Order: sequence, then C-alpha cells, then structure tokens
Amino acid sequence: MAQSDIEIARAARKKPIQEIGAALGIGADHLLPYGHDKAKVDQGFIDGLADRPDGKLVLVTAVTPTPAGEGKTTTTVGLGDGLNAIGKKAAICIREASLGPNFGMKGGAAGGGYAQVVPMEDMNLHFTGDFHAITSAHNLLSAMIDNLVYWGNEQDIDTRRVVWRRVLDMNDRALRQITTSLGGVANGFPRETGFDITVASEVMAILCLAKDLSDLQERLGAMIVAYRRDKSPVYARDIKADGAMTVLLKDAMQPNLVQTLENNPAFVHGGPFANIAHGCNSVIATKTALKLADYVVTEAGFGADLGAEKFMNIKCRKAGLSPACVVVVATVRAMKMNGGVAKADLGTENVAAVKEGCANLGRHIANVKGFGVPVVVGINHFAGDTEAEIAAVKDFVAGEGAEAILCKHWADGSKGMTEMATRVAEIADSGTADFRTLYPDDMGLFEKIESVAHKIYHAGAVVADGKVRAQLKEWEEQGYGNLPVCMAKTQYSFSTDPGQRGAPTGFDLPVREVRLSAGAGFVVAICGEIMTMPGLPRHPAAEAIRLNEAGEVEGLF
Amino acid sequence: MAQSDIEIARAARKKPIQEIGAALGIGADHLLPYGHDKAKVDQGFIDGLADRPDGKLVLVTAVTPTPAGEGKTTTTVGLGDGLNAIGKKAAICIREASLGPNFGMKGGAAGGGYAQVVPMEDMNLHFTGDFHAITSAHNLLSAMIDNLVYWGNEQDIDTRRVVWRRVLDMNDRALRQITTSLGGVANGFPRETGFDITVASEVMAILCLAKDLSDLQERLGAMIVAYRRDKSPVYARDIKADGAMTVLLKDAMQPNLVQTLENNPAFVHGGPFANIAHGCNSVIATKTALKLADYVVTEAGFGADLGAEKFMNIKCRKAGLSPACVVVVATVRAMKMNGGVAKADLGTENVAAVKEGCANLGRHIANVKGFGVPVVVGINHFAGDTEAEIAAVKDFVAGEGAEAILCKHWADGSKGMTEMATRVAEIADSGTADFRTLYPDDMGLFEKIESVAHKIYHAGAVVADGKVRAQLKEWEEQGYGNLPVCMAKTQYSFSTDPGQRGAPTGFDLPVREVRLSAGAGFVVAICGEIMTMPGLPRHPAAEAIRLNEAGEVEGLF
Repeated sequence: MAQSDIEIARAARKKPIQEIGAALGIGADHLLPYGHDKAKVDQGFIDGLADRPDGKLVLVTAVTPTPAGEGKTTTTVGLGDGLNAIGKKAAICIREASLGPNFGMKGGAAGGGYAQVVPMEDMNLHFTGDFHAITSAHNLLSAMIDNLVYWGNEQDIDTRRVVWRRVLDMNDRALRQITTSLGGVANGFPRETGFDITVASEVMAILCLAKDLSDLQERLGAMIVAYRRDKSPVYARDIKADGAMTVLLKDAMQPNLVQTLENNPAFVHGGPFANIAHGCNSVIATKTALKLADYVVTEAGFGADLGAEKFMNIKCRKAGLSPACVVVVATVRAMKMNGGVAKADLGTENVAAVKEGCANLGRHIANVKGFGVPVVVGINHFAGDTEAEIAAVKDFVAGEGAEAILCKHWADGSKGMTEMATRVAEIADSGTADFRTLYPDDMGLFEKIESVAHKIYHAGAVVADGKVRAQLKEWEEQGYGNLPVCMAKTQYSFSTDPGQRGAPTGFDLPVREVRLSAGAGFVVAICGEIMTMPGLPRHPAAEAIRLNEAGEVEGLF
Repeated sequence: MAQSDIEIARAARKKPIQEIGAALGIGADHLLPYGHDKAKVDQGFIDGLADRPDGKLVLVTAVTPTPAGEGKTTTTVGLGDGLNAIGKKAAICIREASLGPNFGMKGGAAGGGYAQVVPMEDMNLHFTGDFHAITSAHNLLSAMIDNLVYWGNEQDIDTRRVVWRRVLDMNDRALRQITTSLGGVANGFPRETGFDITVASEVMAILCLAKDLSDLQERLGAMIVAYRRDKSPVYARDIKADGAMTVLLKDAMQPNLVQTLENNPAFVHGGPFANIAHGCNSVIATKTALKLADYVVTEAGFGADLGAEKFMNIKCRKAGLSPACVVVVATVRAMKMNGGVAKADLGTENVAAVKEGCANLGRHIANVKGFGVPVVVGINHFAGDTEAEIAAVKDFVAGEGAEAILCKHWADGSKGMTEMATRVAEIADSGTADFRTLYPDDMGLFEKIESVAHKIYHAGAVVADGKVRAQLKEWEEQGYGNLPVCMAKTQYSFSTDPGQRGAPTGFDLPVREVRLSAGAGFVVAICGEIMTMPGLPRHPAAEAIRLNEAGEVEGLF
C-alpha cells in the first residue's frame, strides 16, 4: 500500500453524478447538481416513492474508539461496495463532516484506503452547504430572541433563562462562555451565553429526524428557547422564527448523493455527533435509500454505547425503522489498547492484551443483541495484525455466540469484503431480527437514563442533584415524559472517565445537566465533562492545510 | 403592472446555465453547476483568457439613497439587457446579497420588475455559499488566534490588542461587543471583542480585490490580526492560518454566473457593503466579464459619494480598470425627498421640491466628472412621476453639462432601455473617458481622507483626535502610506448625519477610528456613527418569511 488516502481519492474514476442517480432510478431532472459529482435529490421525487417496499437496513457500529482507529465509515463504505460486488443492489448512508474537527485534529470523514466516498475534499469542506444553512437558521433565531428583548420584550422573557445559544461550525473554546450586548443601550441587555459547535445544534437533530419540510417547520416551532418571568416556556414559534428558519433549511433538508470509489451510491446527509447529540445521518436520507436499494448500510457515531444505542432508541423509534443486522467493527489494535497497550507498542504482537481488550467488544455485542438484532463482528484488518491476534478475536466472538469476519476493504475494496457482504445479506434476508427498543416511551425520564446507564454502560449509581431530578419531573408534568433520552458522554469509555478503557463496571454516572430538545423530541443528559464546543489542539491541522502547486488540497485528511 | 417582483421572477423562462455560458463561449466543462440555473466559472478557463482584449466598462451609481428607492441594481440589469437588445454583446457584474439584511428590512438584491436577475430566491439565500465560506475562513483565523494564546502564546500577543474580530452573516446587535473565554482555565483568557457582519470582513474585501488564488493567499497572510507586547504587528501568516483560509475560499473565489429575465449573462460575485467597506463586486468577475463581453455594466453600492468613489479610488486603481462611462441613477421621488418632501407626500406633484433636491444629483454628477469619465443620468421611471417633474430633472442635468435619459426598464425590460443603451454604447465607444483617481498613491493618509471629505463630500473640517492622526502616521512609517482610504460613513447623506439630505456643505467630518486592512490594501476611516454589525428592526422581515403551500419562498423580497 504505497498510496495515501488522498492519492487514492484523487485517482478515483468518478462517474457523473447523473449516472449514479440513474442506477438508482433517479432521473437527472430530479437531481440538483452541486458540481459534477454531488447532487441533492428533490422532494418531489422522494414523495413519489411512498408506496414502494423498503430494503433491508444494516447498521455499522463499533467498539469503544481508541487512538488506534477503528474504521467505522471505512467499513460502511466497504460493506456497501461488497454487497454491490456480490450482485446485490445496495446503497450507503453516512453523515456529513463537520468543518470544526477537520481543522483541529480529526481528519476527514469519508472512509479510507480503497473504501472511500468521493469527492473527499468537498465532503471535508463546505460540501453542499447544509451545515452552513443550519448555522444560519440557528443564529437567526438567536438574533431574533435578543432583538425581541431589545424592542420591548413583549414575550416577557427572563433574560437569565434564555436557553437558546448560538452556534459555529468551528472548534473555538473562546466562545464557550461569553457575555453579549455590552457597550451600552444600542447593543441591548448584557447577558451570559455562549456558542456550541453546529453539529450540537437542536436544528441539526431536527433536520436529521424530520420527515419532510412541513414536519421540519413544526419541530422548529416547538423548540424551547427561553422561559418567561412566570417560568412558562417560550417556543421558537413565539419568536416567529420557524418560517424563516425553514426557508433557510429548504435545500439542506434534501439528501445529498455522491459515490464510492467503486461508483456505488452514497447518501451523505446530516451530521450530529454521537457524544453530544444523537449521532445518526438523516431519516429522510435513510428512508429514501431504503426505497431505492435492497440493502442500505448506515453507520452511527463512535462506539455502540453511544451511536448504536441512540440509533435504536431515538432514530429507529421515532422513524419507525427496524434494522435487520448490525455489524460491530473491531480492530486488533483497538482490542490491544482496550487491553492496556500503549499506542507506541501496538506494533508488537500481544495476544494476551487482545484477549483482555475483547471484554470491551463483548459488552458491545451483548448490548446490540439486547435490541433483538443479529450481530456480526467485522475485524477491520491492519497490515501489522498477526494470525494469532486475529484468531484470538474470532475465538472470543464465537464464545459470545456471534461470528467475526476478517474484512480487507481498506486494502482491497469490495474484494476484501466478499465474505462479510455475503453473510450480512444472508442474515438480513433471514428475517431473524426482532427489533425492540431498550425502554418504553412511558417510562420516567430519570428511569430511562438509568436504563441506559445500567444496561448499556454497566454503571453503578446514576448521580444527579435535586435540581436535575426536579427539572426532569417538571418536564414530565409538562407532557415531555414520553420522550427518549439522548446521552451526552465521552466516547472513549463506557464510563464518563475517558481513561477507563475495556469494560468497566460499577462506576458512578454523574448527570451534570439536562436539556430539553422539545423540537427534536428528546431529553439530553449531559454526563460528566463532555463539551458542546470543542477546542483546537496546540498545533491545529489547519496550520498544515493549504493548496499545492496543482491547486489540490493538502493536509486536510 | 399587476405582478409583483417575485411573481415576475417565478414566471421567468430561465435557460439552463450551460446555455448562458455557451453564449459567452464558456464550455459546460468549465462551468461548475449549482443547481440548473447557477454555476461557477473555473479558474483554468479564466487563465486562458489573458490575451484577449477587454470590453468597455460602464459603472452604474446613484444619487444619495432615500426611502423612496433609487433602483441601482435594477438599472444595471436593465442597461445590460438594453445593450443586448440593441445588438451589443453585454454582461452585467453585480454583488451577492447578504443574508443579514434580507432577514432584517432591506429586501432582496436582484433588481426588480422586468429588470431582475434570477433565480432571485437563491440569490437572496445561500446562493453558491460564498459568504458562508468567507465567514468560515474569517472565524477559523479568529479561533486560531485565541488558540495560540491559550497554548502558551508563542507570538507574545498582547490580548488587549487583538484587532481581528469574528463575523456572522446576520444582523445581530447583541454580538457587537462581547467578552469571550469566560468560565475558567479551560476556556482561555477572557478579553473584549465582538462580531461584525460578514460583508464587513477584510476577507470579503480581499476576495473582491485578489487577482487569483495565489494573490488571495498572499493578501490573507498579510492581514494584521493583533499586536505583540512590543507593539509589532502579528500577521495572519504568523498564525499559520493563510493556507487553510485559502482552501476554505477556493470555490468562493470563482465568479458565479446566472442570468437576467431576458436570459442575458450576469456575474454575481462578492458583496462588500459600500458604507463600511469598498462596495464593489469582485475584480475577478469584472475582469472575466470584460474578456467575454464587449460591454460590461457593473454597479457600486449606495450613492456615488460612497460606491463610485471607492470604485474609482480603490477598485480601478488596484485592478488597473478604467471605466468608459458612468450612469448616475436618479428618481423623481428621490429628488423630491432630497428636496425636503416626506415619504407620505411623494404621490403629489411637486416640481419645486424636485428642483431643490436636484442639488444632490448635481454634486454627484460633478464628483463623477472629476474622475475624468463621461456621465449620463438615468431617470428610473416610477408610475406616479409627472411630465413636469421629469422635465425639471432633465433641465437641471442639461444645466450641469450632462444629459438625462428616462429609463422604463422596471415596467418594460430592455424595451424601456433602448435610448439609454444606445447612448451609453456611443459614449463608451467614443473613447472620451480620461480616467484619473482623486488622489495619488504618495499623498499622506490623512490628506487622502481630507481629499475625499473636501472634494467629494464638500465637508468643512475633518475632525480627528491625536490618537487617530498618530496611528495614521505610524502606518505611514511602517510603509502603508501608499494605500488608498476606504471611508466608512452613513449612506444617507454627504455628511455623517443621516438626516442631512440634499447637498450640505461646510459640516465637520469626524473620523472616529481608523483600521488598517493591510491584506485588502486600504485604510478604513470610520466617520461618525456607522455600525459594522447592523441590528434587526422591531419587526424583522424574518417574521413573515416562510414557504407557501407550493413550497415557494414568501416574504423574502
């Protein structure tokens, strides 16, 4: 493997996006092009699909992430290409990338090796502008709230209780906590507030959960933005912002179509993070793909404790989706790190550490099985993995009543994915899935948090002060008790301590704060020190990002 | 005229953008489509035009704006269509619209009546994402500055002297003055700063003045963002942000091509305001259009005291452009308001007030003539104008040694523009223009400000305290003395008092603050109370903006 991801991507033989659409039965007149290799699918076409049968939905999730890398998106792309290569009609659905982390340290979000989505530069930059539209819509509402207060505050908003913040698609710690409207009368009433990263916006969650534009506007209007002096909630519709926000989001709401290196269709749409939001691509993209393909492979963010849990308990519950099979991605390297090996020592064979680290994989397998969906483990192959290490993972998985398949899509594209694709299609076709959510709608909000904490994380006590519990009770009294919970927690551990790898048990889970996303339809429980606005590292990736002599982007990936 | 602007725009028989490009000789492979009716022209094609001769450049400017409306963009569109209708090969170049004002009170920026550019909804929303790219690039630099300070401040930045603020494309007065990095150690060092509107960003000015991507990066790197404790300037290149900013701007740098209602080409690119920035569309769009058309009609913002002055002294000076003819747009209604009539009384004939208000027009004519370029006045016809009022304007203009032509493009499209188009083509072809800037490069900075104040505004004293004068001196010593000045001033008067219509003289011009835009290449002189972040009105336009049953945008125009 002499070629880097970006070299492979640049050498891609892309087809015009109209050809990719045509293979799915989307006519060129129903594709709104963005350049020659990206397009949005128009709503009229989507509306016309309602009566078609749905394909099978496959979720790709992963073990707890480590600095070794797992390759969830890469595996999603590889599996989609693999299914197409064995003669199935398959499409993939992944999330869009956030600019902030791309200029920080994360690198791109379009897969890797010979399992990539292209054009990767565009996907890691502005793409089709969806995140910018979300930023604009979110901040229009913010400006209208302060403006309403400025011009006489006819809603009697308590300016200490404005819960709607602002957003930027940028890692900027200086904006986490700010004081606005300084400088005198012309600038309004000073108050404390702050910025989150755009992917943490409730608008992002709503865009990803809404059925259509009218559902989008309804949900936007239902967002709680502040409380009045009498403590009653002020909704976005009280600010009269929902119509204009919908106008700003009308194109962003349409799914984006691009292609894999093997010219198979990829829907890339929506992008909430799984540690601070619900972590899944849009419902509209997933449902559209299910109407157009027999198999749809999608992913959910970070480990299965975050992404898969929310995929099941929030996205599938809300959208009426039912996954037919789940692939849990594991790597020998990640097992080693979960088994206590430092990153620098990953190059040395260490079967004992692999076995030790498999406890993490085991818990994710059991968790996913708890949702009633068959599981297969995909071992994403790295060149340095030894036979003995791979065998150790396979043996462990067999002992858990599942099977593990070695996947070489990174090096070989679909050819490295034949076995996995064949097996996933068999499982999906077998109809053995019997999907159920973890908790019912009518369970109390705090009990829902406890359900996830105990059954998924294996926490001991859920620790929350009286204020948090009282807030949850109040929302239940206001009619929000039937909502699911969206856990905000570090992705690096089942616990809230990013240093605790493996499969810790009995730890306390502190719920620091709860937030009601009344429009998206969930209650966010912020556990531990998770940040809704990241910072940049000492040397941000941005320092090395530039155009080369040929006008190509360097340093972004 | 029963139809509204938006009804006319929706009824437009748009051609595919590839056909519009083909008429200019741009092949489809050189157009990057954004939907079916918008495209960017690629750099490779532009590079290949270098050896072609240039067409004639016509500037459309206007009298001092009043609430009566002048119709500068409408006239630009009408003149472009008019030139094409009389058999000339013409293109227009206008600016992109800013989201902020669209959701406040300004309304759209795509012309009106039968002289519009389409698709007007897109142009007034996200268009091709250029402003979002500028916002991202600007704020990436902001985040990197605070991040550098956070991680040890290796540039020894004086955090009290960070001059680089943040931007949003939003009218949000609450962000004008803020304190950032509150909340403790993890969020950095608290300091005062604020947000400007995106169109006021130096990045916007640079995008509009840069020759190509390499010039863009050079200029971005040369921006001064802060001062060290030893008072030496910190440049964006010291922050290592110039490369990543250029990557974020690589598509935004390419001119956008759309069409008029009559299917003639319109380049819509860049959008600095003329009251707080230099107010002209991009140099790259203007130069590209000049290579592709025999006549290029462009506009500059607000009245000729702002837009035209900066067009001449900044854009033409920097880009080596030389206008062949200037059209000053006037309306009977604006003359009446400049003559002291209230908006409510505009419906009543008032020849005396028209004559009185013509003093404003007279000064603009003289000012433009001072640049050595022939002037023709376009009277943008409104239905209520009387014969006597129109005659009064024509007589006045004749007395000033120029000619005024009645233009009915709003009602009749190109057919209402035949006389003006014919005359403009004659003047442009006559070669009578002898363009000169108002002041030489080697004049002192304060003297340049005085030049504009005295010769263009007819001010008495230019008032500036010692700190402002000392700052200008310091910049001269640092080698910035050869830059032109960019006046930031209310658009509603020659003076800094928006209430002073007509042609006031002898007033003081207070220079409140000066800012060095070392990358754009000018010194901004902030005169009076002008804001670089607007606010929203009591009832923002956003309250009424929504999608109708047919999915069309209502309320934006």
